[in-house]
Amino acid sequence: MKVVLGLSGGMDSATLCGYFRHLGAEIHPVNFNYGSKHNKYETEAAEKIAKFYELPEIVNIDLPFIGQLFKSNLLKTGGDIPEGHYNDASMSQTVVPGRNTIFVAIMMGYAWSIGADIVAVGVHAGDHAIYEDCRPEFIFSMQKAVVDGSGARVQLSAPFLYDNKTSILKLGYRISPAVPYELTRTCYKDQFLSCGKCGSCQERLEAFANIGRTDPIQYESPVKK
Amino acid sequence: MKVVLGLSGGMDSATLCGYFRHLGAEIHPVNFNYGSKHNKYETEAAEKIAKFYELPEIVNIDLPFIGQLFKSNLLKTGGDIPEGHYNDASMSQTVVPGRNTIFVAIMMGYAWSIGADIVAVGVHAGDHAIYEDCRPEFIFSMQKAVVDGSGARVQLSAPFLYDNKTSILKLGYRISPAVPYELTRTCYKDQFLSCGKCGSCQERLEAFANIGRTDPIQYESPVKK
Repeated sequence: MKVVLGLSGGMDSATLCGYFRHLGAEIHPVNFNYGSKHNKYETEAAEKIAKFYELPEIVNIDLPFIGQLFKSNLLKTGGDIPEGHYNDASMSQTVVPGRNTIFVAIMMGYAWSIGADIVAVGVHAGDHAIYEDCRPEFIFSMQKAVVDGSGARVQLSAPFLYDNKTSILKLGYRISPAVPYELTRTCYKDQFLSCGKCGSCQERLEAFANIGRTDPIQYESPVKK
Repeated sequence: MKVVLGLSGGMDSATLCGYFRHLGAEIHPVNFNYGSKHNKYETEAAEKIAKFYELPEIVNIDLPFIGQLFKSNLLKTGGDIPEGHYNDASMSQTVVPGRNTIFVAIMMGYAWSIGADIVAVGVHAGDHAIYEDCRPEFIFSMQKAVVDGSGARVQLSAPFLYDNKTSILKLGYRISPAVPYELTRTCYKDQFLSCGKCGSCQERLEAFANIGRTDPIQYESPVKK
């Protein structure tokens, strides 16, 4: 099994790495730079995770046109990141139109080019409410598009499609070695320490609370862990 | 109707422009630079066609990672373009893995960002033999992926899916004004004059012969028109 995997530096893609490593897969990590506010810190996190799993060098793919042409508050060119819960309607301002469709399409072409048979993404049920391109309907359509578009050379795998952050964390701690969550980066904001307030941070903190563990990363101000 | 349209500079996308103009659509052209050998001359042709139809400035999207990471003889980083008929097995060397999947995904995100409801591509039956991502199975899968991934904001239109070059040309000459084929560029080679020998040129010349017209572009050596 040879897997091209989107390694963003977040806890989902870190767990995805652990999962495929657990299955004995050869993992080829890809990271996308698309002008998001949290980009620099995510990229650093992705590199640390790749080092932990002794992966080949991350293939960094620049997509500057997303920041230049697309509308989203997640982008440097967009408005402020809303604070509040991840499922709040305000979080829809952070949707980047077509992001996963673009990422999967590019990873499919790259997988085909290097003879990899799987493209893996870390989308999960916690993303369904806000992000159209994380929902099962889309993943199923895209799975068929990937098979049809690649002449059945490549398949799209989304093993956490019906998981939430809590069950992803549980899985990550059951695997040996445990997924190194201290290396991961979740915050949407463009600052060194995670804010603890954006929807993404809140969802992460909730998941750690749910499994009765302390989040090993540092936050800028005291948060309920 | 507001359409984001892939305008490559070839006769298919020029006809696509004429077709949607005929339907009264507002057309937003996009051109992709992905390290193909014929890129410079295609881009020039696309600009002339956009000017003819008085379109907004072409949005040029650079995808340098395709040339750097993907394998294809169509790319500057690949081997020679094979000569011979477009349907020959050797032409499969010119497949760029995932190209249309990537183009459609990006155009979908851009369409969503500017409030366009349609993404249009000029794929046709002449491409089915060689290119997986020009076949009806793929287009249908991708149509569903685009609708699902955009929350039904955007649809994918491929009006020439069952046409060939000959029927596309017929359509282009029935529209008023006729599609300006003298401005289009079809050759796969990186040279000013079209070669007349590559599969792409041969297919074009056959189509003009089939409708009893002379191809208005210049070729590097005399060809049977």
